[in-house]
Amino acid sequence: MAIPFDPPVVDLTPEEIAQEREVYGGLTESVRRLMDSSMRTTVGADEVTEITQVLDDLSERLEKDMVPGHLGLTLTTEGHARAHGNAVVGLRNPIAVPLQITHDPAGRARSEFHLNALYEGPPGMVHGGVVALVLDQIFGEAAAAGGSPGMTGTLTIRYTRPTRLGDCSAEAWIDRVEGQKTIVKGEMRDAEGRTTAEAEGIFILPKWAREAIDQGARAPTRFE
Amino acid sequence: MAIPFDPPVVDLTPEEIAQEREVYGGLTESVRRLMDSSMRTTVGADEVTEITQVLDDLSERLEKDMVPGHLGLTLTTEGHARAHGNAVVGLRNPIAVPLQITHDPAGRARSEFHLNALYEGPPGMVHGGVVALVLDQIFGEAAAAGGSPGMTGTLTIRYTRPTRLGDCSAEAWIDRVEGQKTIVKGEMRDAEGRTTAEAEGIFILPKWAREAIDQGARAPTRFE
Repeated sequence: MAIPFDPPVVDLTPEEIAQEREVYGGLTESVRRLMDSSMRTTVGADEVTEITQVLDDLSERLEKDMVPGHLGLTLTTEGHARAHGNAVVGLRNPIAVPLQITHDPAGRARSEFHLNALYEGPPGMVHGGVVALVLDQIFGEAAAAGGSPGMTGTLTIRYTRPTRLGDCSAEAWIDRVEGQKTIVKGEMRDAEGRTTAEAEGIFILPKWAREAIDQGARAPTRFE
Repeated sequence: MAIPFDPPVVDLTPEEIAQEREVYGGLTESVRRLMDSSMRTTVGADEVTEITQVLDDLSERLEKDMVPGHLGLTLTTEGHARAHGNAVVGLRNPIAVPLQITHDPAGRARSEFHLNALYEGPPGMVHGGVVALVLDQIFGEAAAAGGSPGMTGTLTIRYTRPTRLGDCSAEAWIDRVEGQKTIVKGEMRDAEGRTTAEAEGIFILPKWAREAIDQGARAPTRFE
């Protein structure tokens, strides 16, 4: 939805970043696996009750030392955004697939990803709102990649067919820039490459953000 | 996004439904807690690595007996939809808040809910795509509650201000019905009751679904 400006910068060595990715990213991966297995399991009530208790004990251990509130955003000294809590791309957010998005400075972003049972709406199909969730993120990154970062003003999605759960892809590109408005277009595709939704978004850079940029604030264009 | 027709009917006693809610719903609640604690934890790498291993062992136990693929939708003999895998309202989907939505047969649906750090986009704010995800579900339920179930044809969201993480509410109502199209309007509000997004959706009942209803198929109007 939005590109925040001047987030705190963290000074980590490449080795520290790699270790963080392995250890904490690995934890998130295992949580994602547990989300799916706990949702679809049919093992008996006694075993489920026992596992539930173990999970609560683990949470208690993890909660002993936590970032208060929410993860927010930090920048590396190289200017990469660490949006680790982001619901679509966040390394540490288990709701996130997470999407790996590639960017083109011409103002284009794309991603190939797999949506499993956790993203279900109609039986066997991706939730229509999940299509919107994914597109909103990719649209915002296309605008930012093209040098026109902004906040989502309006997002219009036209669903042309249901999206089957499984491999999917999405793409977005800057259609045109009109003053402070960046108009982005894009679409969602299923495993067969068929377009399942077409969308248009208007991204707007608020006055306070334009002033911050004029004063030298850095807006991240790459998220991870 | 869509209202499926003629899903399988499961014959469960009220006691069995209550037990399922307690045991498997309880498991999902504990997974939701773990999602947040694992995302925000700052406990050391050794302990995280150990916990990660325990989680993988638990997944292995849960995976011994699973519903293949995805949960889909079943109906109770009373006609209540069991959309347990739904990404917004599903009892067993840990991505779901889950939203508790109340319905009005005049074609209105509303919900009050809490969005924690797992739903973050911009720092401290709800991801714009999560706003769309929540609204899509409530819009579809408003259309269904008013007797005009359909699939999302078009969804347009106008973001009027960022939505702070925390308590939120959303409401949707049928604005008008034009032939096979049901036009739904609604909005998202923050903890102070301020409107943060306004939306309009067009829901369409496909021909195959209209024919199924004519032939007596049941379309659920209540989800849980």
